[in-house]
Amino acid sequence: MAQASTDTGLQLRSTVKTGGTLELSLVSVPTPEPKPEEVIVRIEASPINPSDQGLLFAGADMSAAKAGGTPERPIVTASLSPAAMKAMAGRLDQSLPVGNEGAGVVVRAGSSPAAQALVGKTVAILGGAMYAQYRCIKAVQCLVLPPGTTPAEGASCFVNPLTALGMVATMRAEGHKALVHTAAASNLGQMLQKICLKDQIALVNIVRKPEQAALLKKIGATHVCDSSSPTFMDDLTEALAATGATIAFDAIGGGTLAGQILTAMEAAAVRTAKEYSRYGSTVHKQVYIYGGLDRGPTQFQRAFGMAWGIGGWLLTPFLQKIGFEAAQKLRERVAAEVKTTFASTYTKEVSLASALRLEEIAVYGKQATGAKYLINPSKGV
Amino acid sequence: MAQASTDTGLQLRSTVKTGGTLELSLVSVPTPEPKPEEVIVRIEASPINPSDQGLLFAGADMSAAKAGGTPERPIVTASLSPAAMKAMAGRLDQSLPVGNEGAGVVVRAGSSPAAQALVGKTVAILGGAMYAQYRCIKAVQCLVLPPGTTPAEGASCFVNPLTALGMVATMRAEGHKALVHTAAASNLGQMLQKICLKDQIALVNIVRKPEQAALLKKIGATHVCDSSSPTFMDDLTEALAATGATIAFDAIGGGTLAGQILTAMEAAAVRTAKEYSRYGSTVHKQVYIYGGLDRGPTQFQRAFGMAWGIGGWLLTPFLQKIGFEAAQKLRERVAAEVKTTFASTYTKEVSLASALRLEEIAVYGKQATGAKYLINPSKGV
Repeated sequence: MAQASTDTGLQLRSTVKTGGTLELSLVSVPTPEPKPEEVIVRIEASPINPSDQGLLFAGADMSAAKAGGTPERPIVTASLSPAAMKAMAGRLDQSLPVGNEGAGVVVRAGSSPAAQALVGKTVAILGGAMYAQYRCIKAVQCLVLPPGTTPAEGASCFVNPLTALGMVATMRAEGHKALVHTAAASNLGQMLQKICLKDQIALVNIVRKPEQAALLKKIGATHVCDSSSPTFMDDLTEALAATGATIAFDAIGGGTLAGQILTAMEAAAVRTAKEYSRYGSTVHKQVYIYGGLDRGPTQFQRAFGMAWGIGGWLLTPFLQKIGFEAAQKLRERVAAEVKTTFASTYTKEVSLASALRLEEIAVYGKQATGAKYLINPSKGV
Repeated sequence: MAQASTDTGLQLRSTVKTGGTLELSLVSVPTPEPKPEEVIVRIEASPINPSDQGLLFAGADMSAAKAGGTPERPIVTASLSPAAMKAMAGRLDQSLPVGNEGAGVVVRAGSSPAAQALVGKTVAILGGAMYAQYRCIKAVQCLVLPPGTTPAEGASCFVNPLTALGMVATMRAEGHKALVHTAAASNLGQMLQKICLKDQIALVNIVRKPEQAALLKKIGATHVCDSSSPTFMDDLTEALAATGATIAFDAIGGGTLAGQILTAMEAAAVRTAKEYSRYGSTVHKQVYIYGGLDRGPTQFQRAFGMAWGIGGWLLTPFLQKIGFEAAQKLRERVAAEVKTTFASTYTKEVSLASALRLEEIAVYGKQATGAKYLINPSKGV
């Protein structure tokens, strides 16, 4: 890699235009002069999480996207349906930077001792605009990675690890003793399984394919239910009865899975009920939808009594609720276990320009297990 | 009415038989000798609430029900689908009494002063098995009605009034300032509107027909949205923006209405948002499903950000949560306002035997606004 000037850097942008078109491009932006408490991080690794793809693709039909521009400065365009456009009213004609989290090396720092102390350090950061060569950020927001950790190893220190830890914390705070997770073979799901093994919490994993079940069993999972199996509902009910799990975190969102989980929880709960009640068991059963891998409608039969809830779950409000101190403890655990519990795996590392190639979008846009990409904005520039 | 012996009395029973048949019948049961703290109430009025019909009909197809027995001792049979049978596993072959609430006159009492003090009084009672000539119950569970109140006037003192008061209390406890109610022209809905007018709380009523809107406007409703109108979603969004309502109580359950309410709440919330967030507004939006007028699946598009919840709501756990003292205050308010705020209207008063006539079941079984029945077990015996 040639030594480039830090004065300007490329940044990936996503724009939804009034006419109904999404445009993805790279723009050259000046690197700001860091204020006393700030540092400039040269980003070397930033994952493409499902939570990034909502902002990146804006609900456009990427299968019909068109490539333009040059290989160095590609421009991708795609159409949005009228329904998708309605949901995008708040961001029309705004050129938005993308990328929730990343890691890199501090190359410049403001005058404060805290900022100066970070020069040369490899740090993980969260806060958007990470699909960029340089990111100006407050020193206090930098999580210093243990010596010997590469940016690629530290790229996913926040979204997945804190979400997984947040699920366990929510389970405890709401009085449940075990939990259920869907799309459980994902990077996040593997982390959650590793946390649960370490912290001795019972976890019921739901996957969609036998090979995903095998992957989880390999890392020590006890309860794995395959929703493609004809015995899925029975398997799930058995696992719920065995673990007592009454809270689930669902990455799928659309379809019938959330309701099926509640139905199986109810079936497990009535096994121990002393008498029949037409209102079902009194055990509160909760599903939190935290992702939308299936963007279609959510549908359920209310066959699980009256003590149930389905709701949205999001990392940021969770962190705000527990407060800075408690959140900082979680971050420090992530840094300490970044190569073990919180290790991520990626299919491919791409440059900013390559991330906008239609062939690559076709792969990582599927959000399939084992198709996770890492952008290295310092690559190929 | 001839003076009958209190030694035995007729009681309506609902039985789901192993073969997949529902049987409704009247059985003669001995009236128990009241214990010191108990009284015997001669039931003269008991409403057929939607919440009674679940236990009564057990999800059977009543449109194909068959009549048998004699006019005095009718027997109604109907078939349950395999799906309905699955949900009824807990009550198979049990002959269950029906009727959540009612009112009548205390005709006998145990030896305690509290019980003796009730002899001859007209009381309202809650606790099941009210579709019966006589009901033995603890004196402390009797709500003494103000002098001059008939059993018919006091028949619905608990389920609807406490549910309506419970909705307002839940709204306050969960930090909302206004509320939404569906199927709002029902007896319960009219009560809720009267409570809100009296307590100065903004209420958004959702109805399905213009005549229901007119009925609510007549009793003073400000916000009434008709879901059959082509401008429904716009009307609802305007009403939500005007009132700031972020919690809804839904009697329908099935279909798309719960999701539409959340979508309109989100649209109202983003009007005042300062900047675009792809996760939607940070305002928590809640729908509680407390009824199932539409037994079909619930379906929603997740087009309302991440700060939302849908859940079951049930009166009994609510009353347990607030405790006896707080619940007693609510009951006393109901007794005091039984002829005004909490007045109910009924289409027809029927005897126990008439309640099992197929022509009557066809009417009250529809659970339509303006088709509410009152059973008078002391009638025609």
